[in-house]
Amino acid sequence: MSDNEFSLIDKHFKGKGGHSHPFTRLAIGDDASVHGLKDGMELVVSTDSSVENVHWPHDMSLDLAADRSVCAALSDLAAMGAEAIAVWVNVMAKDKHAVKAMAKGVSRSLRRYNVELVGGDTCRSATNALSVTVAGQLPAGTAMCRNTALADDNVWLAGRVGFHALGLKQWMSGDKHGEFVHHINEITPRLAAGVHLREMGVRCCLDVSDGLLQDARHLADASGVGMDIEVTQVPEWLHLCHQVAGCEPAFEAVVHGGEDYALLFTAPASMVIPNALAVKIGTCRAGTGVHLYRDGVLCSVKKQGYLHFE
Amino acid sequence: MSDNEFSLIDKHFKGKGGHSHPFTRLAIGDDASVHGLKDGMELVVSTDSSVENVHWPHDMSLDLAADRSVCAALSDLAAMGAEAIAVWVNVMAKDKHAVKAMAKGVSRSLRRYNVELVGGDTCRSATNALSVTVAGQLPAGTAMCRNTALADDNVWLAGRVGFHALGLKQWMSGDKHGEFVHHINEITPRLAAGVHLREMGVRCCLDVSDGLLQDARHLADASGVGMDIEVTQVPEWLHLCHQVAGCEPAFEAVVHGGEDYALLFTAPASMVIPNALAVKIGTCRAGTGVHLYRDGVLCSVKKQGYLHFE
Repeated sequence: MSDNEFSLIDKHFKGKGGHSHPFTRLAIGDDASVHGLKDGMELVVSTDSSVENVHWPHDMSLDLAADRSVCAALSDLAAMGAEAIAVWVNVMAKDKHAVKAMAKGVSRSLRRYNVELVGGDTCRSATNALSVTVAGQLPAGTAMCRNTALADDNVWLAGRVGFHALGLKQWMSGDKHGEFVHHINEITPRLAAGVHLREMGVRCCLDVSDGLLQDARHLADASGVGMDIEVTQVPEWLHLCHQVAGCEPAFEAVVHGGEDYALLFTAPASMVIPNALAVKIGTCRAGTGVHLYRDGVLCSVKKQGYLHFE
Repeated sequence: MSDNEFSLIDKHFKGKGGHSHPFTRLAIGDDASVHGLKDGMELVVSTDSSVENVHWPHDMSLDLAADRSVCAALSDLAAMGAEAIAVWVNVMAKDKHAVKAMAKGVSRSLRRYNVELVGGDTCRSATNALSVTVAGQLPAGTAMCRNTALADDNVWLAGRVGFHALGLKQWMSGDKHGEFVHHINEITPRLAAGVHLREMGVRCCLDVSDGLLQDARHLADASGVGMDIEVTQVPEWLHLCHQVAGCEPAFEAVVHGGEDYALLFTAPASMVIPNALAVKIGTCRAGTGVHLYRDGVLCSVKKQGYLHFE
């Protein structure tokens, strides 16, 4: 018998993720999955779509694109400080080869982070795409939100920014083996860092998916504070300037480049954050707006981050 | 400022669903939503994609298509017997007009069933599509599954089958005002019936989305039983035969037509099910396979229900 969506799901999705979690009482195979939640815990849920030619170039392997999609969704759990426990995946595929390739990437990413695949669906579409829904848990009342920064907090970055944008630029220009290209293959959801920060008492965080400036504005606006960021403090700034032949393209990538999934968070000045975890890149202040400085000089920036509809 | 995906979400999605539920502690606006669950309750989650030219014809309004997508997803909660409490929607849209139209349909369906929109995302795609994730709750251990039918159970149907298929046939043939066309506009997730059945003690149920025969097979196979169904017992059988000029096309629609979202369930012979809720259409038996009878005569059926990949 040839494969249909049911046999494809059985073969390529069922039991292909990480270990099962006591949260999940019924996984793939019924109309829905069923879950319990321990007393005193809260459930954290996010969902993200990834679409061919929008979120990944058409000549990237679907396997890799699907892996990246899962990681991007998991990053939202990292930003909240949640422990990842379950994933549901909607696969929209041009043909069954596309289903298989995407299933392979989904399974690999879930095994890497030991998260269970508990549901989803598979259907035909003229455009390859995935929607990934993720669930995590944390102690009630401890989620790191984006509206809790205070005017005298420091601003921190856990992870790099700009590297994905530079990799994508190389890839799109035909330099498929450029120095930065491997960064578009590697989305790292900073799950362990997120849990660590939440346990340290950090209360304000988001993940940088649409560019440092745009996401910093989201956090500052939601919290009702202003923010000053010194761009040269981002990790590997000098390396970037050196490798891309100048600080102008480095600035562009660092400020506007999306998809590196670093965690941007704020913390009281009194809170000691280990260097291995994050670097301080700025401070919050009373007022509004995000000001970018380069070596102490205020920069004028008109451009925004990536927008799907303008 | 022109609309981007953030302003589109603010304008067209935020607060546009039903009332907020105590389950939800943080809804749209952060990296994820946050939820609690009362002691002794379980969470039920399902996700479904709907794609233009696959799940709805390209000349159906996007507003209606989105409404239907939400209802189809909610139907999975009905099949489990869960109370619907939260929805996340991924909107993949060709342009911002498509976003607005889909948002309108999403909001309308959520208000109709008083379910809160708690998250999602909006992005560009060459193919209009939605993924809808739904969450509901029920007392722990009471979910209606598909693997719990017993060999001497009766088989029941709550709702009609075949009407959507006949409506779609009329629409696709250009008869946009045919008698059955309004059935493709009206997906009814049988949420109240699902809760009622679960409270009565029904333990085995699914929703008929891919055709009566295919879904009956899913239930029978999962439960390890056989099943005999008398097709003439489905609601409005004679009306269908009369309206479509013969019982052959009626049989085809009833047996293979998807998307009516009736609930197919089994119950011990001793359980009294009110006529207003469901009609008895068959019995389970030891063995395997689903046998269809028409006026007591065993029918030979080769065709399966809808398959995305064959």
